[in-house]
Amino acid sequence: MAGSPFAWIDEQAHQRLQAGLVRTLRPRAADSPLLDLASNDYLGLARHPEITAAAARAAHRWGAGATGSRLVSGTTELHGELERELADFCGFESALVFSSGYAANLAVVTTLAPHGSLVVSDAGNHASLIDGCRLARGATQVVAHADPDAVRKALGTHEGPAVAVSDTVFSVDGDAAPLAELATACREHGAALLVDDAHGLGVLGDGGRGAPQAAGLAGAPDVVVTATLSKSFGSQGGAVLGPAPVIDHLVNAARTFIFDTGLAPAAAGAALAALRLLRREPERAARAREVATALHTRLTAEGLEAVRPDAAVVSVRAPSPEQAVRWAADCREAGLAVGCFRPPSVPDGISRLRLTARADLTDAQIEHAVGVISSVRRQSPPNWRE
Amino acid sequence: MAGSPFAWIDEQAHQRLQAGLVRTLRPRAADSPLLDLASNDYLGLARHPEITAAAARAAHRWGAGATGSRLVSGTTELHGELERELADFCGFESALVFSSGYAANLAVVTTLAPHGSLVVSDAGNHASLIDGCRLARGATQVVAHADPDAVRKALGTHEGPAVAVSDTVFSVDGDAAPLAELATACREHGAALLVDDAHGLGVLGDGGRGAPQAAGLAGAPDVVVTATLSKSFGSQGGAVLGPAPVIDHLVNAARTFIFDTGLAPAAAGAALAALRLLRREPERAARAREVATALHTRLTAEGLEAVRPDAAVVSVRAPSPEQAVRWAADCREAGLAVGCFRPPSVPDGISRLRLTARADLTDAQIEHAVGVISSVRRQSPPNWRE
Repeated sequence: MAGSPFAWIDEQAHQRLQAGLVRTLRPRAADSPLLDLASNDYLGLARHPEITAAAARAAHRWGAGATGSRLVSGTTELHGELERELADFCGFESALVFSSGYAANLAVVTTLAPHGSLVVSDAGNHASLIDGCRLARGATQVVAHADPDAVRKALGTHEGPAVAVSDTVFSVDGDAAPLAELATACREHGAALLVDDAHGLGVLGDGGRGAPQAAGLAGAPDVVVTATLSKSFGSQGGAVLGPAPVIDHLVNAARTFIFDTGLAPAAAGAALAALRLLRREPERAARAREVATALHTRLTAEGLEAVRPDAAVVSVRAPSPEQAVRWAADCREAGLAVGCFRPPSVPDGISRLRLTARADLTDAQIEHAVGVISSVRRQSPPNWRE
Repeated sequence: MAGSPFAWIDEQAHQRLQAGLVRTLRPRAADSPLLDLASNDYLGLARHPEITAAAARAAHRWGAGATGSRLVSGTTELHGELERELADFCGFESALVFSSGYAANLAVVTTLAPHGSLVVSDAGNHASLIDGCRLARGATQVVAHADPDAVRKALGTHEGPAVAVSDTVFSVDGDAAPLAELATACREHGAALLVDDAHGLGVLGDGGRGAPQAAGLAGAPDVVVTATLSKSFGSQGGAVLGPAPVIDHLVNAARTFIFDTGLAPAAAGAALAALRLLRREPERAARAREVATALHTRLTAEGLEAVRPDAAVVSVRAPSPEQAVRWAADCREAGLAVGCFRPPSVPDGISRLRLTARADLTDAQIEHAVGVISSVRRQSPPNWRE
């Protein structure tokens, strides 16, 4: 594209190629024979017949799309039902559903960190929270990862409204934030705590009620939680949970709510069915954690460097991006789908295999997966860490 | 919430109440008897049995959710199929599907306006393009609405990569951007043109191929188009259309693509079915425009101040936010759902009823809608414009 306004894109593509960091899409078949340890389908509900049937039913009854902004034509009684049951399940006064967790995070940070406020943001936060900080009118201070004292110190530098923002479970390494301590630090300074429970809901807390519930923060008047419907609930969309006046504020002020089309009925229906199934089968949450622990224990015993999981994400460090890519490709060749996280998607520049523990994995499948990963790693000796 | 970190929210809520600008959600029933002139379901496909059946089929076959990022587990062959057919239909080399049009717009502006570049943005652009400008590393210059000379002048002030950004059809007034002239202005300066065809796809161009196709820009090497699957296609999601290297760049660099869960299979399946139906019944596009023209002609004849529609949005000015709310409520009372746009959702502060022309409205329904709106307006005499 020489001479085109996009000529600079070719240069960047060339640099990515040189660095071994080119990403390509690999469409999967409906009947893919791969054992899935790559998705965020923690409870194994995305293809559960009860959940897909609920999606289909909702499409037939309510239509294929929401047809408009939630404020115009895009709110159905189904959205209201999902919001009420989700708030009730997680122990918060009110809930609001978005078309994605990304949109929910942008909404929460931008609307709750107005001009003149301070946002204290964990260095390991998800891209959507970081973008929320960039869009917010308040000033952002990034603090050390999972460090309540750093949050306390940052809050101490500011007069006026302030919020601390953190993932509850960090997506890359699967480690948990010290939520109770963060809440204490916030309360000392009259600040609010905003947490993204994308990887906690369905896995942590009583019967999967999420990390805030596990930390004793459910329904707290100074805590706002975002969650996704696309991970444990096997569907699509995001949600915000919090005090009713905060939710009303979002309805009135959140641009990614007001100017976006409502979540499709099929996704809302599937999420509601997943929530009800989880209420009925609360043991799924504990099983996902159990599978994660088993994966970690067995991989570590095989000499792999895995981070002890706080939820259902098991991160295995690789010596280089090239090795990570090779390991993942060799796993795939051997019938195992694993995630491969490389720069620039990892905050510390360390490449990893990212495994997800699904509640519906059998012990034999866990053993098989560990065998494949160990064997792949043995055949591909470590080189230097980049 | 006095003493709480959210006390300032109560003050804002009070101000909104005083100003008559409180927004509340009004969940609709599946069997709502209202005649819908509020949604963006321009082709009447959201509840078309062929489209809802495709959504249901996709959920059964592929699952209720995509289960992860498009780069990990979230790309199915269905996503690939939709992207190929959409690119082909609109006449572009490549396409990429997002979970929303909002996410697609954030992706395009942030990745195509890097540090050191200039973004020239129409003053009437959609919130998602504005947020894209705010997030982009490039510098933004906002220029007068639909003014190619203003774009030309702004581009002349800058050396290095530059893009002009515009809606093709503006959501509030339904007026079209002068796309061919904008492209000319961009080419004079070696700049790219990024346009959001959310309200053009399915309505403008040959058989609904969109505003860029109508302007002779389909497949142009210096034009990138975003579109939504949630309006004419009756589903959910967004898409970017453009040269293959640009799409590859998005796959590698767009945060709202990389760090978001893929579009749910039901939404992808419904959008694909809508696209195929539109290919088979291209007259739907022309009918939507015809209905819009009929609405405008009849409303104007009744003395209402309506903007001549360039696509399927018909904007009717109201003398005040209070009157707009009252008109909309009275219409609803009379069985007619219309949109009501008020500050701060309107760039010029003027409140409106926003009507959408659906291809499946009958002449009798148009006549009925005009009768209701005229009668509602007669019973509620205009006061001062705020």
